[in-house]
Amino acid sequence: MKCRATGEKDVTFKVLYCGICHSDLHFIKNEWEKDWASSYPLVPGHEIVGVVTEVGSKVEKFKVGDKVGVGCLVGSCHSCDNCANNLESYCPKMILTYGSIYYDGTTTYGGYSDIMVTDEHFVVSIPDNLPLDGGAPLLCAGITVYSPLRYFGLDKPGMHVGVVGLGGLGHVAVKFAKAMGVKVTVISTSPNKKKEAIEHLGAHFFGFQCCLCFVQAAMGTLDGIIDTVSASHPLLPLIRLLKTNGKLVLVGVPDKPLELPVFSLLMGRKIVAGSATGGLKETQEMINFAAKHNITADIEVIPIDYVNIAMERLSKTDVRYRFVIDIGNTLKSST
Amino acid sequence: MKCRATGEKDVTFKVLYCGICHSDLHFIKNEWEKDWASSYPLVPGHEIVGVVTEVGSKVEKFKVGDKVGVGCLVGSCHSCDNCANNLESYCPKMILTYGSIYYDGTTTYGGYSDIMVTDEHFVVSIPDNLPLDGGAPLLCAGITVYSPLRYFGLDKPGMHVGVVGLGGLGHVAVKFAKAMGVKVTVISTSPNKKKEAIEHLGAHFFGFQCCLCFVQAAMGTLDGIIDTVSASHPLLPLIRLLKTNGKLVLVGVPDKPLELPVFSLLMGRKIVAGSATGGLKETQEMINFAAKHNITADIEVIPIDYVNIAMERLSKTDVRYRFVIDIGNTLKSST
Repeated sequence: MKCRATGEKDVTFKVLYCGICHSDLHFIKNEWEKDWASSYPLVPGHEIVGVVTEVGSKVEKFKVGDKVGVGCLVGSCHSCDNCANNLESYCPKMILTYGSIYYDGTTTYGGYSDIMVTDEHFVVSIPDNLPLDGGAPLLCAGITVYSPLRYFGLDKPGMHVGVVGLGGLGHVAVKFAKAMGVKVTVISTSPNKKKEAIEHLGAHFFGFQCCLCFVQAAMGTLDGIIDTVSASHPLLPLIRLLKTNGKLVLVGVPDKPLELPVFSLLMGRKIVAGSATGGLKETQEMINFAAKHNITADIEVIPIDYVNIAMERLSKTDVRYRFVIDIGNTLKSST
Repeated sequence: MKCRATGEKDVTFKVLYCGICHSDLHFIKNEWEKDWASSYPLVPGHEIVGVVTEVGSKVEKFKVGDKVGVGCLVGSCHSCDNCANNLESYCPKMILTYGSIYYDGTTTYGGYSDIMVTDEHFVVSIPDNLPLDGGAPLLCAGITVYSPLRYFGLDKPGMHVGVVGLGGLGHVAVKFAKAMGVKVTVISTSPNKKKEAIEHLGAHFFGFQCCLCFVQAAMGTLDGIIDTVSASHPLLPLIRLLKTNGKLVLVGVPDKPLELPVFSLLMGRKIVAGSATGGLKETQEMINFAAKHNITADIEVIPIDYVNIAMERLSKTDVRYRFVIDIGNTLKSST
């Protein structure tokens, strides 16, 4: 597949690294709701970083040689309330980085590619001190956890936030929350992640989800929870961990509805919220914050011909914590 | 049963009216979760108004002859974060108006009584221009819908809020929201309530819940929803009605968990929240607001010996919209 010629507002860049997000697996297997049905051929990848090779005549923010990134979206309507409020990620006409229909009627293809051409509005600048390989996953995993920490006010020093699931999103959530001065409890179904959570990631506490002793002891202690789990799981123990006015924010997408225990919500004016990826302004803010606080994802760099094995390992959560494809050194250009 | 002697911080008042809340039915039938199990004998009633007959030596806010009201709670710990933030209604040691154990170890009894003795902290003042019979239900139904409209910021003029269920809580929610300058859409499973909602209560729109045409037409138009329904019901159509960042607030308590469609929450950063009754400061604020805007519940006044029939009618939602017992004229004192 060839990409389009560089338009006047477009940035063309050589892809160097692309993260493998769990949603790539969902898309490959066509597991989303019907409004988001996959069409094939499908080229995944929305955690993309690279170096600019060409810019259109009206591009203002980038020049050749700049380090740039592209996340989950490459287009939106620019006229709705969401777009006006820098929430392009909630625009009903949002164009996903891959598998969507672009303005010109073509299908978008993602970052498992050698070259990307993207409207500059959807391109972020990568600061020089942010490593490109470990920085790539921030474009989706990073912003997906950073955005709700900010929007739901779970970013105040001294607060106590839970992170459910210690995978691609969860481990980055721990890093961002800690950098914001927030005390973090990692909640996982895998007791063997305790050492990792506390010693390696520096979480303050670790709780074993579904362990009644833990839930009882920690009941009413959390200001909020970022729940990254996309498998079905009970919400009641998590809601019980929240203080009055506490916020349970779901960023993973289970394929079936979860059970919502209403009484427990009422008895503490608690909320269960959903949050998707962030808008472009906030994505740039997140990248700058990550660079300032030396936050990157913990990654396993792989060559492009390892992708199918990586997908199988990912489906078994056998990765610590993100696969990143070394596109620059291992993908040969088709042209 | 005799009530206690007036303590130094107590207000004793002759009960004149008491509303019948749907939760009275839940308590009578012992239908709450096990932490809230009913004990018998049980005297219900937490929408109580009357006239002060005696005050304790240290009572500061009330004097004999004052019109007063008591809602869902008569005690709390006064030392937790919730109490410190005027959220006594979320205090883990909150003492309910009936069926709870009071500080002195006795069981509390509610407003289906001729006399109440209550710590002045849990007594509100009823302004002279607020009718006592139609005002009584505000002490529970009123504050239960007023509080989330305020807390979740659904009180801004020009906003558009949905009210699900046109019963005791719902019809008061319409009145409060309208008085705040908010546009109101009533959403009900009973098409025959349309005339009532629009012509009598002055709602701006009416939607038939579960009607796909309505949901399709109104998708993404509501800033928030106050959902007063305590029967099991689907949340998906309601979530679809919300704008980005929209808030679905549940104030009814279904006896089983509801299904939570996570994808729909994520795709608009929406929240599902629970909200219970308000604290005392806010309850007084609500009563003052109601008096200022001439808001009362639409009621059917009944004598005390009609209570059992009223309960049966209430269980079939055969009341428009609240039964209020004329305690003052129909309940003979046992002393």
